[in-house]
Amino acid sequence: MAKEQKDNQFVKEITDMTVDFPQWYTDVILKTELVDYGPVKGTMVIRPYGYEIWEHIQEELNKRFKATGHKNAYFPMFIPYSFLVKEAEHVEGFAPEVALVTHIGDTPLEEKLVVRPTSETIISSMYSKWVQSYRDLPVLINQWANVVRWEKTTRPFLRTSEFLWQEGHTLHATEEEAREETLKMLEVYREFMENVLAIDVLTGNKSEKEKFAGAVNTYSMEAMMLDGKSLQAGTSHYIGNNFASAFEVKFLDKDGKLKNPFQTSWGVSTRLIGALIMAHGDQRGLKLPPRVAPIQVVVVPVAAHKEGVIEKATELADRLKALGIRVELDIRDQSPGWKFNEWEMKGVPVRIEIGPRDIENGQFVAVRRDTLEKTFNKIEDLEKLIPALLDEIHANMFKQSHDFLYSHITECHNMVEFKEALDNQHFIKAMWCGCRECEDAVKAETAASTRVMPFDQTPIDDKCVYCGKPATRLIYFARSY
Amino acid sequence: MAKEQKDNQFVKEITDMTVDFPQWYTDVILKTELVDYGPVKGTMVIRPYGYEIWEHIQEELNKRFKATGHKNAYFPMFIPYSFLVKEAEHVEGFAPEVALVTHIGDTPLEEKLVVRPTSETIISSMYSKWVQSYRDLPVLINQWANVVRWEKTTRPFLRTSEFLWQEGHTLHATEEEAREETLKMLEVYREFMENVLAIDVLTGNKSEKEKFAGAVNTYSMEAMMLDGKSLQAGTSHYIGNNFASAFEVKFLDKDGKLKNPFQTSWGVSTRLIGALIMAHGDQRGLKLPPRVAPIQVVVVPVAAHKEGVIEKATELADRLKALGIRVELDIRDQSPGWKFNEWEMKGVPVRIEIGPRDIENGQFVAVRRDTLEKTFNKIEDLEKLIPALLDEIHANMFKQSHDFLYSHITECHNMVEFKEALDNQHFIKAMWCGCRECEDAVKAETAASTRVMPFDQTPIDDKCVYCGKPATRLIYFARSY
Repeated sequence: MAKEQKDNQFVKEITDMTVDFPQWYTDVILKTELVDYGPVKGTMVIRPYGYEIWEHIQEELNKRFKATGHKNAYFPMFIPYSFLVKEAEHVEGFAPEVALVTHIGDTPLEEKLVVRPTSETIISSMYSKWVQSYRDLPVLINQWANVVRWEKTTRPFLRTSEFLWQEGHTLHATEEEAREETLKMLEVYREFMENVLAIDVLTGNKSEKEKFAGAVNTYSMEAMMLDGKSLQAGTSHYIGNNFASAFEVKFLDKDGKLKNPFQTSWGVSTRLIGALIMAHGDQRGLKLPPRVAPIQVVVVPVAAHKEGVIEKATELADRLKALGIRVELDIRDQSPGWKFNEWEMKGVPVRIEIGPRDIENGQFVAVRRDTLEKTFNKIEDLEKLIPALLDEIHANMFKQSHDFLYSHITECHNMVEFKEALDNQHFIKAMWCGCRECEDAVKAETAASTRVMPFDQTPIDDKCVYCGKPATRLIYFARSY
Repeated sequence: MAKEQKDNQFVKEITDMTVDFPQWYTDVILKTELVDYGPVKGTMVIRPYGYEIWEHIQEELNKRFKATGHKNAYFPMFIPYSFLVKEAEHVEGFAPEVALVTHIGDTPLEEKLVVRPTSETIISSMYSKWVQSYRDLPVLINQWANVVRWEKTTRPFLRTSEFLWQEGHTLHATEEEAREETLKMLEVYREFMENVLAIDVLTGNKSEKEKFAGAVNTYSMEAMMLDGKSLQAGTSHYIGNNFASAFEVKFLDKDGKLKNPFQTSWGVSTRLIGALIMAHGDQRGLKLPPRVAPIQVVVVPVAAHKEGVIEKATELADRLKALGIRVELDIRDQSPGWKFNEWEMKGVPVRIEIGPRDIENGQFVAVRRDTLEKTFNKIEDLEKLIPALLDEIHANMFKQSHDFLYSHITECHNMVEFKEALDNQHFIKAMWCGCRECEDAVKAETAASTRVMPFDQTPIDDKCVYCGKPATRLIYFARSY
C-alpha cells in the first residue's frame, strides 16, 4: 500500500470529470501527449500519439471511400479571392474567418489569396476544365488536406484555426444520383463511427440556419459527449447546382443539351479525435477504441529482474505482433504500478501482466481498459484470446455509447420540460414549427441549438415546443461543441 | 494496318523527346492526367492518377521511417514571422520567397504569419518545450505536409509554389549520433530510390553554396534525367546546434550539464514524381516503376463481343487482384489498339491481352511496358508469372537507370573537356579547389552547378578543373532541375 502510494506520486493528476469536464478534457489531451498548443493562437501540434490515431482513421476511411469508387487527389491550398465571392451564401459564411495571403516576402500580390477554409470553389473551377460530356460523369474525388478557419474560441481537436480533414467532392448527371451519393456517404460515416470509433450517432438533415454555406441540404451525424453536449462529427452536403453554375461546370448530356451537373461534398476532420476522447474517457483518462488505438496491447513484466520474465514478456509481445496487433513492450525502469496507471491514462485497450508466478503456472494476466476486469489466461491461448478480447472491448464500448445516448434523450412538449432535460444533460427530442424565429429564441434562452431532423419523422406532438403553433417536423436540440 | 492507323488517330500526340524534352514532359504529365495547372500561378492540382503514385511513395517511405524508429506528427502551417529571423542563414535563404498571411477577413493580424517553407523553426520551438533531459532523447519525428516557396519559374512536380513533402526532424544527445542519423536517412532514401522508384542516384555532400539555409552539412542524392540534367531528389541535413541554440532547446545531460542537442532534418517531395517521369519515360509516354504504379496490370479483352471473352478477362483480373496486384480491367467501348496505345502512354507496366483464340489455346498474351516484349503464356501459370514479371521489370528499369547514369559521366581535367561533356549531356566528375569563386565562374560560363562530393574521394587529378590550383576534393558538376 505504501508502495502503491509512492507509485501514484508519479502519475500526473487529471481533474475530476464530474467537477470540471472542460478541464478534464484539457488535462487528458495534454498529459497523454496527444496534442500541444502551437505558437500561433488557436493552432495545435498533433503529437505522435494523437497523430497515429488520425492515421488509423485515415486508413479506415480510405478503405471505405475506395470501396465506394472514390479516388484521392490534391488541390492547391491558395484560392484566388475572386473565387470566394462567386457563390453568395458561401462568401457570407466564410469571408470573416478566412486567412489572407497578401505578400510574398516584401512584394504585395496583385490578387490576395484565401487559404482554403474548404475547397468547393477551387475544385469546381478545375471540374469546369475536366468535364465536358456525360461520359465524364460521375466525378468521385476525395482530398486529405489542412484547412484554415479563424475561430474566436478554440480548443485542440474541437475547434482550431488550422485543422486536418478529408473533403469529398463529387459531380453527377442527375439530382437523384447526387442525392443518393450524399446519403450514401452519410451512411459510410455512420458505419465508420459504429465499427471503428465505437460511437453511436444521430443522423439527419440540418435546419436552414445550421446548414453549410452554399449547400441545398446538409446532413450531419451528431455524437453525444459524456457531458450531454452534442458534437457534429461529420457532414454530407447536397450542393445542387450552386457551385456548378457559379463556376460554369457544364456537360453535354445524352439528350444533346448542355447542363450543370449536380454536386455533393462531405467531410470529417481531426475533431473526431476530440469526439472519441469525450465519448469514451473516464476519471483515469483516455479509453481508446481498439481499432484506432496506436497501442492496442501493452505487455508489462512484473518482477522483471527475475530470470526469464523479460524473455517471456518479449515472447508474448512478439507473438501478438505476428498477428498484426499493435503492441508495446514496457521494460522501462519504473514500477509495475506506475506503468499500470500510465497506460490506463493513455487508454490502451488491453494490458497484459506477466511475472514469475504466472510463468510457473503457464498463464498471463489480461486487464481490459473498458471494464478494468482482470482475467487469468493460459499462455497457449494467447493468439485466440487477444484478438477476440479486442473485438469484445470494441463491442462493449459501442454498446455503452449507444445506451448512454438513448438514456439521455428526453421527449419534450414544452419549454419547462425542455429546460429540465437540458439541466439533466439530455438531448431534447421535440416538434418544431420550422421557423427561424423559434430556433433563434430557443438558442438565446437555453444555448441549445437544433442538431438534426431524423429520417424517421413520426410526430410526437402536433405543436411546436417553443411557440405552440402547428409543428411541421421532428428535431433534436442540444447544447453543442 | 489501316485499322491501326485509324486507332492511332485517337491517341493524343506527345512531342518527340529528342526534339523538345521540356515539351515532351509537359505533354506527358497533362495527357496522362497526372496533374493540371492550378488557378494561382505556380500551383498544381495533383489528379488521381498522379496522387496515387504519391500515396504509394508515402506507404513505402512510412514503412522505412517506422522501421528506423520514427513516428509521424503534425505541426501548424503558420509560423510567427519572428521565428523565421531567429536563425540568420535561414531567414536569408527563405525570406524573399515566403507567403505571408497578414489579415483574417478584413482584420489585420498583429504579427504577420509565414506559411511554412520548411518547419525547422516551429518544430524547434516545440522541442524546447518537450525536451528537458537526456532521457527525452533521441526525438525521432517525421511530418507529411504541404509547404510553400514562391518560385519565379515553375513546372508541375519539379518546382511549384506549393508542394507536398515529408520532413523528418530529429534531436540527439551527441554530434556523433546526429551525424549517424543524417547518413542513415540518406541511405534510406537511396535504397528507396533503388528498390521502389528503380532509379540509381549519386549521393554525397553538397558544397557550402548549395547546402540548406541553416544546416552545417547537406547530403543529397542526385538522379540523372534522360536529357542528362541532374535532379536533386532528396536531402538529409546535419543541422548541428544552429536551431537548438536559436530556440533554446536544452537538455540536462548525464554529466549534470545543460546542453543543446544536435539536430537533423531530411526530406523528399512530390518532385520524386517528376524524377520518375524523366528518368524512365520514352516516346510513347510514361513508363511507371511497378512498385508505385497505380495500375500494375491492365487486362484488355480482344474481340470482346465474342462469347466468354469478357468472362475470361474478368477471371484473370480477379485472380491477380486476389494476389494484391493493382489491376484494371478495360472493357470500355474502344478498339483494342486504341486501348493498347492509351495504356502504354499511361505507363502501365504489364498489359494482358486475351481473345477467343487465346482462350481456345489456354493462353494469354503479356506485353511488358519496359521492353515492349510480347509473350504467350499458359493461363494456369498466371499467378506464378505476373508477380515475377513485375519484379523483373523493376530490376530491368533499375539496371537501365544505372547503366544510363554511369555511361553519361565523364571525368574532366580542364574546361574544354568539361564543356564537351556537357554538350554530350553528361555529368562531369572533376577535381575542385573548393573555392566559391570557381564554383560561381563555372556556373556563369556553363550553367552547370556543383551537385555532390561523393563519399569515395579518390582523386582523379591534383588540379582544380577550373583554376588549375591545387585541388582539395572530387565533385560532380551538372546542369540541373
